[in-house]
Amino acid sequence: MPADAMESTLALTEALVSRASVTPDDAGCQKLLAERLGRAGFDIDWLPRGDVSNLLAVRGQQGPVLLFVGHTDVVPSGPVEAWQSPPFEPTIRDGRLFGRGSADMKASVAAFVTACERYARTPDNGPLRLVIALTSDEEGPAQDGIRAVAPRLPDRLGPVDWCLVGEPSSSQRLGDTIRVGRRGSLSGEIVIDGRQGHVAYPDQADNPLHRLAPILAELIDSDWDSGTADFPPTRLQLTAVDTDTDAVNIIPGRASARFNLRYAPASSADELREQIQSIVARYAPDAGMQWFHSAEPFGSPPGRLREAVMSAIHEKTGQWPTADTAGGTSDGRFIAPLGAEVVEFGPVNATIHQVDEHIDLEAIDALSDAYEAIIRRLARNAPSAD
Amino acid sequence: MPADAMESTLALTEALVSRASVTPDDAGCQKLLAERLGRAGFDIDWLPRGDVSNLLAVRGQQGPVLLFVGHTDVVPSGPVEAWQSPPFEPTIRDGRLFGRGSADMKASVAAFVTACERYARTPDNGPLRLVIALTSDEEGPAQDGIRAVAPRLPDRLGPVDWCLVGEPSSSQRLGDTIRVGRRGSLSGEIVIDGRQGHVAYPDQADNPLHRLAPILAELIDSDWDSGTADFPPTRLQLTAVDTDTDAVNIIPGRASARFNLRYAPASSADELREQIQSIVARYAPDAGMQWFHSAEPFGSPPGRLREAVMSAIHEKTGQWPTADTAGGTSDGRFIAPLGAEVVEFGPVNATIHQVDEHIDLEAIDALSDAYEAIIRRLARNAPSAD
Repeated sequence: MPADAMESTLALTEALVSRASVTPDDAGCQKLLAERLGRAGFDIDWLPRGDVSNLLAVRGQQGPVLLFVGHTDVVPSGPVEAWQSPPFEPTIRDGRLFGRGSADMKASVAAFVTACERYARTPDNGPLRLVIALTSDEEGPAQDGIRAVAPRLPDRLGPVDWCLVGEPSSSQRLGDTIRVGRRGSLSGEIVIDGRQGHVAYPDQADNPLHRLAPILAELIDSDWDSGTADFPPTRLQLTAVDTDTDAVNIIPGRASARFNLRYAPASSADELREQIQSIVARYAPDAGMQWFHSAEPFGSPPGRLREAVMSAIHEKTGQWPTADTAGGTSDGRFIAPLGAEVVEFGPVNATIHQVDEHIDLEAIDALSDAYEAIIRRLARNAPSAD
Repeated sequence: MPADAMESTLALTEALVSRASVTPDDAGCQKLLAERLGRAGFDIDWLPRGDVSNLLAVRGQQGPVLLFVGHTDVVPSGPVEAWQSPPFEPTIRDGRLFGRGSADMKASVAAFVTACERYARTPDNGPLRLVIALTSDEEGPAQDGIRAVAPRLPDRLGPVDWCLVGEPSSSQRLGDTIRVGRRGSLSGEIVIDGRQGHVAYPDQADNPLHRLAPILAELIDSDWDSGTADFPPTRLQLTAVDTDTDAVNIIPGRASARFNLRYAPASSADELREQIQSIVARYAPDAGMQWFHSAEPFGSPPGRLREAVMSAIHEKTGQWPTADTAGGTSDGRFIAPLGAEVVEFGPVNATIHQVDEHIDLEAIDALSDAYEAIIRRLARNAPSAD
């Protein structure tokens, strides 16, 4: 990799970090990137929605599609005085770049661009279409970002074969972990109404905790599924239990419990709801239930993208990454339903959303390098267009 | 019963209700009663303690002891404007006497006195010593009232054979229920500390609710004892469960539960504590536990007092009362350890501690009448002194 290209990933990351693009404000990041991508032969579509900036950059007319997904928005800095250097002044210290968004995920976005630039400079590339989709609404409501862009992709691109999300997937060092899916998230609340009364006269009351407790014990003890090759088994966590009184001599009139399931695609949200409702109904047929289904699970079986990502990481680091489905959720969930194989690979996530967020300088270049290697592996093996 | 005596129980009750004797203020009730009892041949001991007035009235030098226990204090009136007539202005309406303390328990105290007056007027009584102990600290902390008086009784009286507490024991009509003991009350709190964390990463957290829930299910499901002839089996009620967070995506760091046991003398508080601690320890060996032992159970096997009370009620009403051990606790718990047979018998408790507390006018006279009959039955059967 030529020295000027290496420099440019850091320089581009710094240029992005210096723009205080707190969701949904893009603060000019995408404009800067669009200029770079335009010079590298990308066609730019602007797909703004409300306050949210969305950019779609496409290079090539034929061949399978490799879509890079990223976001230019960042979470707020938190107390500025707690930072060692101002969060929106990119600062190099001890071989690291400090600044809000440096790891989540402006270095990844810069690395997308410089990797594509270097690839574009090479003659005789395979028939691969490179696409970059960026939004300024990943850290916020995530309504007007990739969720809104995704349904427009088939018309613009046809099928999306591969999607590489640049979220910071690594744990201790760059490339030790990639994500090959994310679990679904289903939360629920059980509310049981009884009849309040004095604790000395339980027969004149109806203690809702006495119906709730065995429900909770059974929920904790239940097996939901066995997971899949990529997904651990679905797990339930109780997050809160409460009563409407806490006097020591009063039987409460109402008791409630909240729980969350992180679930594998081996279960559907509907199946889990039914299973839980049938447990609840055995003890408290009149219980009220509320559900919050915040994310469907998504995951792809091992495919050419995963193979390319793992091989590129092994080639650059000498280690094979762990492929897991841990963590919260990501914009990959909006692309997976299009039929794309989705893999997430990005920097170490140890400091994201925290004060003094940073990324190792050498990881910035290594990331760009790895993304380029992934592009080249997929291009090399892409079926040639007729 | 002569008409003037019937009148006087109502008049005396009204005189007591008109004194706003909210705990610990006796407001002159005991002075009024002491004058009446002095004229009936009682010796009066004043045993004040702090703000609390305590009166001990003793009539007779020999024979077994029948001790009436009562209180002159009342709970606060609550919002005066909610009452149909002012709480401390005794008001007769629809054949009832309204006023704070009318049922709990100034009518009982007045009936003690008029029953004793009538008995004292009769010549050739058996060798029975009549004792009345009154306090102005039953509804409050109950530290300086009968609890403090009881230990002084053996020196003053020798053994106490029988103790009749005038607490409102009746449910629907006067004499349908008497109490022959009270259950013990033991409360506890379980606090389990875990490690807070994001719900997506349960392996990095330690969910205290997941250890608490099976404990609660097992506590609810446990049998503690089979009760006794007079006592129902010990029962546990959960009264509160709480967590230190209630965010839907956070595993709480701390969970706690409170419970109360109303227990029969078939179990001791120590046994119950041990049994519960061993359940808790199986799931959460490090759980913190706090205990509040607010009352020992007390109860007497059927004896001459119970027989006299039941027979007197049957004679006056044609019905046999139910003898139970329900309800909260009473000053009887301080007398029972002296070896006395303790029975509680008083008016209907439906309106006690509420606005518009009242007692049927005819119950006032019937109560005095029944107390007199109890005295006479015990006096008739008392062993004559040598």
